[in-house]
Amino acid sequence: MLIRTGISLDSELLARFDRVIRKKGYKNRSEAIRDLVRDYAVAEDVEEDRTVVGTLTLVYDHHRPKLSEQLIEVQHHAQAKVLAATHVHLDHNNCLEVVLMKGRSSQVRHIADQILTLRGVKHGKLVLTCRGKGLA
Amino acid sequence: MLIRTGISLDSELLARFDRVIRKKGYKNRSEAIRDLVRDYAVAEDVEEDRTVVGTLTLVYDHHRPKLSEQLIEVQHHAQAKVLAATHVHLDHNNCLEVVLMKGRSSQVRHIADQILTLRGVKHGKLVLTCRGKGLA
Amino acid sequence: MLIRTGISLDSELLARFDRVIRKKGYKNRSEAIRDLVRDYAVAEDVEEDRTVVGTLTLVYDHHRPKLSEQLIEVQHHAQAKVLAATHVHLDHNNCLEVVLMKGRSSQVRHIADQILTLRGVKHGKLVLTCRGKGLA
Amino acid sequence: MLIRTGISLDSELLARFDRVIRKKGYKNRSEAIRDLVRDYAVAEDVEEDRTVVGTLTLVYDHHRPKLSEQLIEVQHHAQAKVLAATHVHLDHNNCLEVVLMKGRSSQVRHIADQILTLRGVKHGKLVLTCRGKGLA
Repeated sequence: MLIRTGISLDSELLARFDRVIRKKGYKNRSEAIRDLVRDYAVAEDVEEDRTVVGTLTLVYDHHRPKLSEQLIEVQHHAQAKVLAATHVHLDHNNCLEVVLMKGRSSQVRHIADQILTLRGVKHGKLVLTCRGKGLA
Repeated sequence: MLIRTGISLDSELLARFDRVIRKKGYKNRSEAIRDLVRDYAVAEDVEEDRTVVGTLTLVYDHHRPKLSEQLIEVQHHAQAKVLAATHVHLDHNNCLEVVLMKGRSSQVRHIADQILTLRGVKHGKLVLTCRGKGLA
Repeated sequence: MLIRTGISLDSELLARFDRVIRKKGYKNRSEAIRDLVRDYAVAEDVEEDRTVVGTLTLVYDHHRPKLSEQLIEVQHHAQAKVLAATHVHLDHNNCLEVVLMKGRSSQVRHIADQILTLRGVKHGKLVLTCRGKGLA
Repeated sequence: MLIRTGISLDSELLARFDRVIRKKGYKNRSEAIRDLVRDYAVAEDVEEDRTVVGTLTLVYDHHRPKLSEQLIEVQHHAQAKVLAATHVHLDHNNCLEVVLMKGRSSQVRHIADQILTLRGVKHGKLVLTCRGKGLA
């Protein structure tokens, strides 16, 4: 159910906001504010250790002995559920992999730590987001 | 070519560092420090607008009219190269999608802005990392 | 001049937002949304290298030879204007200092780098914010 | 007590690191790595809710009725200890204030939330750092 709510803003502040969101590509102010509000709701899910969706991006050297096995091992024994993993060959040595997970934020963080500390994993970052429910 | 370099650290600081990295899961101090050093190198690639790898994680409502077409449209007209996109159905309405890209950091950021400001995209985050070269 | 603008939000999302901002301590929704909007405006000032206000927090060991002189030296030769500096003695060795500055964001960042890389400065972080104008 | 520890790094990675830290202003590699190590130790203090030092930077409109009283009220009733507060007049309306605090990270965060949600406070950010002990 859509609710219409009103906010009062100084005209100069509003003009600045409008300018920035247009630069970003927003079609209108309402959608930009909704995104800010959603971001708050997602942050709470993460903080309260609710079920979230996480994606771990990592770059690694697939020639490193045993690394591929270790990556698969960690994903199979994970407490959070690994939904999918996508792999792209960047060059002869380097792979880009993104692991899509679902679970409590602490569980998803734990898997990320396990993977990022493996020898041969050169760089990586975890993104935590929501499952989309209640974020219309 | 591997180079061995020495650093001097206070014993108490070193003990604290060792405790934290063990908690994270590092097997040894050298690998943990290498990761810190790599992170610096990656940050420079991003700042200097060099070619980087980016992954955009987004959660959206696939029932939103025209959103799927818009998502594909943006990816096809992108200046950065879209390497792959993985899609997971979270529930009846919500989709998780990760778009893997390669390009200058400014180009990758531009695509991310274009996608994240689309109506129906509920939440999303961009990760910028490196191509792995020179990060052994 | 105050302008009233309306936004449409899903009732469930709004309920979540209200819950989070109450936890933070906001008295009403309007003030919370205004803060989100202001944050956007400030981020633009920083990105566009406009005149901003910066505060550098640092913890250092005042027994380190020449460090105090170096700290003063950097502040006096800075391109950004140092407005004030506050110093608190944490214990026999450690000092907390906050340097308040005004200048283009690149200039303020440069001073911060100069100070944070000094030997004896143990930890520090820079905050960039606005001058308050046009942020009513 | 100083300990000397050795790390092995690929020569290309080391060359990149050296280039970046020189740009930042570091005189040598050892000091740069020590800073990375310290950052890790500080992050642990914050996460484990140990006693930390926090500085809250805020920009506010001092003409807003009762705001000054509320700011002082919050600081006096705080569970964390307010060590000092520095105030700078930015223009006729706007004030920059930095509040220096000491306490458990959760307590310091709570005060920051209380202050940042006050009406008339336009923008602000909290920095959490350490007390300097054991970070030589």
